[in-house]
Amino acid sequence: MKFSPLFWPIKFKQNIIYILDETLLPHKLHYLKARNYQEACCAIKEMKTRAVGQVILVFYIFLQAIRKNKNADLRKIARAINSTRPTLSFKYLTDMVLGWQKERAPLEKCILGFLETLKNARILQAKETSKLIKDGDVILTHCNISGQMPLIGEFCRRQEKRVRFFTTETRPYLQGARLTAWELKQQGFEVTLITDNMVAAAISQKGITKVIVGADHLAKNGDIANKVGTYQIAVIARHFGIPFYVLCPPASGVRRGREIKIEIRPDKELLEYQGVRIAPKGVKGYYPAFDITPNKLITKHIFMEIKR
Amino acid sequence: MKFSPLFWPIKFKQNIIYILDETLLPHKLHYLKARNYQEACCAIKEMKTRAVGQVILVFYIFLQAIRKNKNADLRKIARAINSTRPTLSFKYLTDMVLGWQKERAPLEKCILGFLETLKNARILQAKETSKLIKDGDVILTHCNISGQMPLIGEFCRRQEKRVRFFTTETRPYLQGARLTAWELKQQGFEVTLITDNMVAAAISQKGITKVIVGADHLAKNGDIANKVGTYQIAVIARHFGIPFYVLCPPASGVRRGREIKIEIRPDKELLEYQGVRIAPKGVKGYYPAFDITPNKLITKHIFMEIKR
Repeated sequence: MKFSPLFWPIKFKQNIIYILDETLLPHKLHYLKARNYQEACCAIKEMKTRAVGQVILVFYIFLQAIRKNKNADLRKIARAINSTRPTLSFKYLTDMVLGWQKERAPLEKCILGFLETLKNARILQAKETSKLIKDGDVILTHCNISGQMPLIGEFCRRQEKRVRFFTTETRPYLQGARLTAWELKQQGFEVTLITDNMVAAAISQKGITKVIVGADHLAKNGDIANKVGTYQIAVIARHFGIPFYVLCPPASGVRRGREIKIEIRPDKELLEYQGVRIAPKGVKGYYPAFDITPNKLITKHIFMEIKR
Repeated sequence: MKFSPLFWPIKFKQNIIYILDETLLPHKLHYLKARNYQEACCAIKEMKTRAVGQVILVFYIFLQAIRKNKNADLRKIARAINSTRPTLSFKYLTDMVLGWQKERAPLEKCILGFLETLKNARILQAKETSKLIKDGDVILTHCNISGQMPLIGEFCRRQEKRVRFFTTETRPYLQGARLTAWELKQQGFEVTLITDNMVAAAISQKGITKVIVGADHLAKNGDIANKVGTYQIAVIARHFGIPFYVLCPPASGVRRGREIKIEIRPDKELLEYQGVRIAPKGVKGYYPAFDITPNKLITKHIFMEIKR
């Protein structure tokens, strides 16, 4: 099975964490070194890694700390991780590790076991998703699902189903253009890029048959938080009557989407592009990093089961 | 009354046409000179001017030609203009001039008269639109309506109604960021920029009450062609139950939206940004310059009546 470098973007060797710098893709495949939790938290804040990369990173941060010092202050590290970004429920992850510690479980074994389970659950999720795809389907996706789209494509190949992809560019960080288009192309799939305002035009003109996106957060009622733009794609998919599938992480403790805190990023990230200001001074920007797609717009959740 | 430079972006002095280069905004307010129809057509092809600027330019091209030479070959000029860009119905405009010539009407007078009528009709259209706005409204717009948004805002001021604006950036040419945000800010309005994927998030979170967009083309059945992205904003506005208003040009001879030919632009314009490629090689792009919004999604057309 071929995997995208984005499928497991964090590596751990000789107690150093190597973080794939996703901001440099597709031009450069470069791994940042994190020698301690402070450096790793900094990489999260600066969005050098995202989505599943952040999840893996959280566990490697604890692994690194306990290998350095058996009596490391894990609560302090958990607090530092929790305060990096609001939307992704880091607390849910750090609480897992603190829970193992409290139960006096073998920490290193628990962490490595969890990561192995996560990897297998993700492979299974991609396989389950591939079963929803028919020969000749044209899939639209948004942002990046950390290597899951090419993996879904690989499973389709094994099942001898032809599939083509469209991806939005996903402004302002362009994860669709820089990451999804790149990893799909790398694995030999046909992929067409559109800007975020071309979704309705592409569905009506280019025969898109299904939408598949990921989610950063799943509430108990089925609402999801994902990269901003997901919500409107769900609205548009419903308008055109095409299925809208979501690859979900395990559900968090949050009951409804509206209880998920949405991170508002600095508007500079939207008012400038590659260092060049695109709007005149005095113009404000609004940049919610995520939006909430209500359960009723989701055709099917593809859940991920992780036994702990 | 204060007008945006975009309200009448073409000037005509001493038989030279001055074209506001909209690709340089908001950084530079620069007018290109066109000494003949070839130079003017080139400016249209390169999208130096757009929307109403293109309409005004068509008439100035003929004015320049007949002032240079009473017996200029207007049919040849009409053909050159018609072949510049497919979606905007230049033929409709050039046929008007050829019609006047056929009827042996005083051409110069007809052209200047038409432009004067157009100007007044646009002012009236902005005034009519302002009547639909309530005190405290938050208006979302897309792309750029050539000075109409700040003019609508001016009429609201006169009527002592507070109004705030949101504009999408409108990839790939960023007309919303570069033109609309700029002209609104210049005239002292509060304007917030969002990326094209933040429409649903902004409507649900920031209290947007109405959508107002322009149209490049109006079919007889009420369908419109406008900058790509308009269609999905109409879908989203309908989902949220907020009005979707369209400032229309006079209806063309086309019966239905699906008969309007949509210009597909070179995908390079989407795969690169400011000379930097954002997607890896081998990735294709799809860039329809316009999309068709069906009549049924339009709350109200604000028509423009031009008697000829």
